[in-house]
Amino acid sequence: MTDRSAAMVVIGNEILSGKVTDSNSPFLARELRRLGVSLERISVIPDVVDEIAATVRRSADRYDVVFTSGGVGPTHDDITMAGVAAAFEVDVVTHPEIRAMIEKHVGDDPNAAYMKMAEVPDGAELIPGRHAAFPTIQMRNVYILPGIPELFEAKISDLADRLAASPYHLREVLVAEGEANIAEYLNATLAAFPELLLGSYPKLSNPEYRVRLTLESKDETYVDSALDDLIERMPAAYVVKVHGRA
Amino acid sequence: MTDRSAAMVVIGNEILSGKVTDSNSPFLARELRRLGVSLERISVIPDVVDEIAATVRRSADRYDVVFTSGGVGPTHDDITMAGVAAAFEVDVVTHPEIRAMIEKHVGDDPNAAYMKMAEVPDGAELIPGRHAAFPTIQMRNVYILPGIPELFEAKISDLADRLAASPYHLREVLVAEGEANIAEYLNATLAAFPELLLGSYPKLSNPEYRVRLTLESKDETYVDSALDDLIERMPAAYVVKVHGRA
Repeated sequence: MTDRSAAMVVIGNEILSGKVTDSNSPFLARELRRLGVSLERISVIPDVVDEIAATVRRSADRYDVVFTSGGVGPTHDDITMAGVAAAFEVDVVTHPEIRAMIEKHVGDDPNAAYMKMAEVPDGAELIPGRHAAFPTIQMRNVYILPGIPELFEAKISDLADRLAASPYHLREVLVAEGEANIAEYLNATLAAFPELLLGSYPKLSNPEYRVRLTLESKDETYVDSALDDLIERMPAAYVVKVHGRA
Repeated sequence: MTDRSAAMVVIGNEILSGKVTDSNSPFLARELRRLGVSLERISVIPDVVDEIAATVRRSADRYDVVFTSGGVGPTHDDITMAGVAAAFEVDVVTHPEIRAMIEKHVGDDPNAAYMKMAEVPDGAELIPGRHAAFPTIQMRNVYILPGIPELFEAKISDLADRLAASPYHLREVLVAEGEANIAEYLNATLAAFPELLLGSYPKLSNPEYRVRLTLESKDETYVDSALDDLIERMPAAYVVKVHGRA
């Protein structure tokens, strides 16, 4: 099992203008974490070909895999295929297999809007759907996914086997004290366990705890040793609960 | 009233790893739209100083105003001040007014974690809070906001007067047909009204309509003329409902 980094590019004026709340990036973030893939950046950008091209290009160069969401339908604002094609300096072409699927669905001689849905960047491959009816379109290390949440999620399920990397091991500590009073213990544990992924998340007006600490590593022994170290350092009265210890 | 562009930079491993769902960027998107400000990009990035510096720098160069969310507390992963300082090539310094507020709160000689909360990029200004207890920190065209949603939202309320630009006028049309069958009408209206902001959002398994169209402009006469044009073109049976006409 390997390590793998990822980026997401959300394409849609409707997100930036507050008309629609993006649920695809939170879904992808959770799924990738579960699969052991490190999501390193989410970019939400407008329906503009040059923006899509520049952002996809930079993401594809920098991260192992890239997921785009949105802009793949039949209307004027669906320009993701053109943007991804421009990112890789190739043309947009009609994919014969997708065209055949559309003709099966709407009959021969589909209108221009249907035909637009058969367009892909030249060189794109199709990944057959299991959970999703339609295949997923892959261009190099970029998966081009639809923005409609039901379809996006079905396609991520179709891709899970290909994406899986070595898993993260997560432990949580709920703490009764505020961040300013525990920072020194966190710093000391981090000095002893520099590879630890340590998060500290204050919660306002929560009766049970004031800060949630998350400790993570791909090495289970390492994360449990760091957890022991941190609990050892903190006054016992600070620790409300510990979750996930092996 | 002017036009104004904006970008948001969300700083937080907890969002990228799926532990926390970011509610600040949807909130900001809605608020900015209401204020007539065009949000052009949202970037979600990890707690890494160089990433923060590069992203804030690029955003501050490109857009009129930038909002950061997260990374301003007292713990090891709160490095937004260092990142913004690096973006503008200045040092991080202790702000005497913030230090005084902290001393008032916790007494003289606050610990290192409390003192960290008085650090700002050299040259930063304070905007007094009305809805938020603590002032907002502004560095050039960058507003540095906390990640905790209650605090983030209070600070945006404090900034609303400064941000307001000329408003958008929004009209909506709910359509009974699928996108592939209305694309030609949308294209024709766009050809006649090239400045129209036209969105087309399909909804799966919705009993009332299949596509929601949004028409927007800062010119109210223009958007209503475009609306009339579109409704004129479409078969009457396609139009389920029209919202917002002046």
